[in-house]
Amino acid sequence: MRGAVLYGRRDVRFEERDVPTIIKPTDAIIKISVTCVCGSDLWPYRGVNPVPEPTPMGHEYCGIVEEVGSAVTSIKPGQFVIGSFFASDNTCPNCQVGYQSSCQHAEFVSTAQAPLLRIPLADGTLVATPDVPSDDMVPSLLALSDVMGTGWFAADAANVKPGSTVVVVGDGAVGLLGALSAKQMGAKRIIAMSRHESRQKLAREFGATDIVTERGDKGVARIKDLTKGIGADSVLECVGTQESMMQAISSTRKGGYVGYVGVPHGVELNGENLFYSHVHLHGGPAPVRRYLPELIKLVWSRKINPGKVFDLTLPLDQVAEGYRAMDERRAIKTLLRP
Amino acid sequence: MRGAVLYGRRDVRFEERDVPTIIKPTDAIIKISVTCVCGSDLWPYRGVNPVPEPTPMGHEYCGIVEEVGSAVTSIKPGQFVIGSFFASDNTCPNCQVGYQSSCQHAEFVSTAQAPLLRIPLADGTLVATPDVPSDDMVPSLLALSDVMGTGWFAADAANVKPGSTVVVVGDGAVGLLGALSAKQMGAKRIIAMSRHESRQKLAREFGATDIVTERGDKGVARIKDLTKGIGADSVLECVGTQESMMQAISSTRKGGYVGYVGVPHGVELNGENLFYSHVHLHGGPAPVRRYLPELIKLVWSRKINPGKVFDLTLPLDQVAEGYRAMDERRAIKTLLRP
Repeated sequence: MRGAVLYGRRDVRFEERDVPTIIKPTDAIIKISVTCVCGSDLWPYRGVNPVPEPTPMGHEYCGIVEEVGSAVTSIKPGQFVIGSFFASDNTCPNCQVGYQSSCQHAEFVSTAQAPLLRIPLADGTLVATPDVPSDDMVPSLLALSDVMGTGWFAADAANVKPGSTVVVVGDGAVGLLGALSAKQMGAKRIIAMSRHESRQKLAREFGATDIVTERGDKGVARIKDLTKGIGADSVLECVGTQESMMQAISSTRKGGYVGYVGVPHGVELNGENLFYSHVHLHGGPAPVRRYLPELIKLVWSRKINPGKVFDLTLPLDQVAEGYRAMDERRAIKTLLRP
Repeated sequence: MRGAVLYGRRDVRFEERDVPTIIKPTDAIIKISVTCVCGSDLWPYRGVNPVPEPTPMGHEYCGIVEEVGSAVTSIKPGQFVIGSFFASDNTCPNCQVGYQSSCQHAEFVSTAQAPLLRIPLADGTLVATPDVPSDDMVPSLLALSDVMGTGWFAADAANVKPGSTVVVVGDGAVGLLGALSAKQMGAKRIIAMSRHESRQKLAREFGATDIVTERGDKGVARIKDLTKGIGADSVLECVGTQESMMQAISSTRKGGYVGYVGVPHGVELNGENLFYSHVHLHGGPAPVRRYLPELIKLVWSRKINPGKVFDLTLPLDQVAEGYRAMDERRAIKTLLRP
């Protein structure tokens, strides 16, 4: 079969890869219905993270179960399933408290931009939908595999409650779905920080009530203006740079909450500044598995449509163009069809 | 009148100071019943914080109201009162959400090691006890002015709940009272990290169930041993150094909570490490005012006796010895009688 392999900076190739097979009795093989390119894939693609050797890519997936190992009991061939980018046993102490992305046996799923995918710990990782979904629903189900679950975790970690004033830092797919999550959780006001027209539009469609185009100190000043000088109750940090993190912390009211899900790159927090900011800080790799049953229900009942973040659809063999379009911000998120 | 003045490294003097008077109509003057030396006073005393000029000292106090300004309505001369080290109006948006130590009009109370003290924003800052207390209760009421409220905030910020497993990093007065707070909040297991016998004893008296004498990585390994490899639900950081902060974060389970109240000195948190630690982080200068009514009730009904942290009592004119004894760790906390 052929799949995506990253060779180095801005060099992603569609080439022959081994067909995955059951290695452990807890594995499953799924036939990918759709996969996609993640904002976090751009870190190595842009050379920010080193790529020491040719690396198969992709960690977002949904599809039909093709085969299961002998120990798998809860998932059957023919079912349509979704899983997180972290495989998890869903039984260890970390999983039991809802942190499946810190599962004691977590394995990163990293070869999803391909027609077939091996999933370790299938019972703990995969969640089946009630039935095989109609085609139009599939992009929204795919979004649950990472970006929707991650946006939801950001909002949850930022303690969004009915009536909250929320700021979203970052207008990538995760930030946009953070706005959608905040709306679902009952936020009264959702301020999206974005300077890209198409993203602003989608943010508004997802529930943003205000758009702030300024960044850094000017962005913080604008948030303070909009919140009577106090700052927001909840701020979702969906980028992962020093600037975005400081922007998030400084936009939060005393005693407010920062939910951070942007993978930090070069972020250092000064203890004293953090101390006097009086914010709550929580984040990390989103425990997507925790939210899958709830989010599948919301998509299945058509209450949310996170698949709207896919504004470019390509056949999988054009994966290189999919990366390029996101790198150049021509696309928010690229959906790939094997 | 005479009070404590810090001149520089290990040079605290008892000398003539101006008698405080009402400056603003919202002020009160109180006659100090007892005051004390704080662990945080040791930072400038040890030369860690610079002392650019002779500085009156002391921020913990309780006593009898002597005089109030014309705008003060809730406090009357003759009442016994306690206040936080941060004066607050208790009405601004930050106060309303319980962060009085970040009051928009906060003033640090910094001249309490003296017979008389001016309190700004008296209505918002001071809380009167039901009556003038008996002498034996006064040390416990004094403790509410900072260390007890700070330990309580650490436990609250660390989300201590009935049944929690709690670690306390730091065996100063705040750490010890953090253990007492965790006990009051229903913690099942309280692990105090301490290598000083007298402090271990008091920690146990306050509710600690285990003592860990190791520090740093060895300390973390010991906590992991004691918690089936998982880490604690709640960790109270009551020191403020890089080592203690990392010890706290690393001792916390995935999804657990770190409440940090040690004033950070040179602490830098690596964003990526924090991200993958999956902990909740909250802290800052304790909003002692928020907790005063509740804590006064607990002391008044003799349910808690935080005054036990005072293991040295001196007349105020021996304040220099009070600092020395704490600096040399001969005393946990020095109570001073004007």
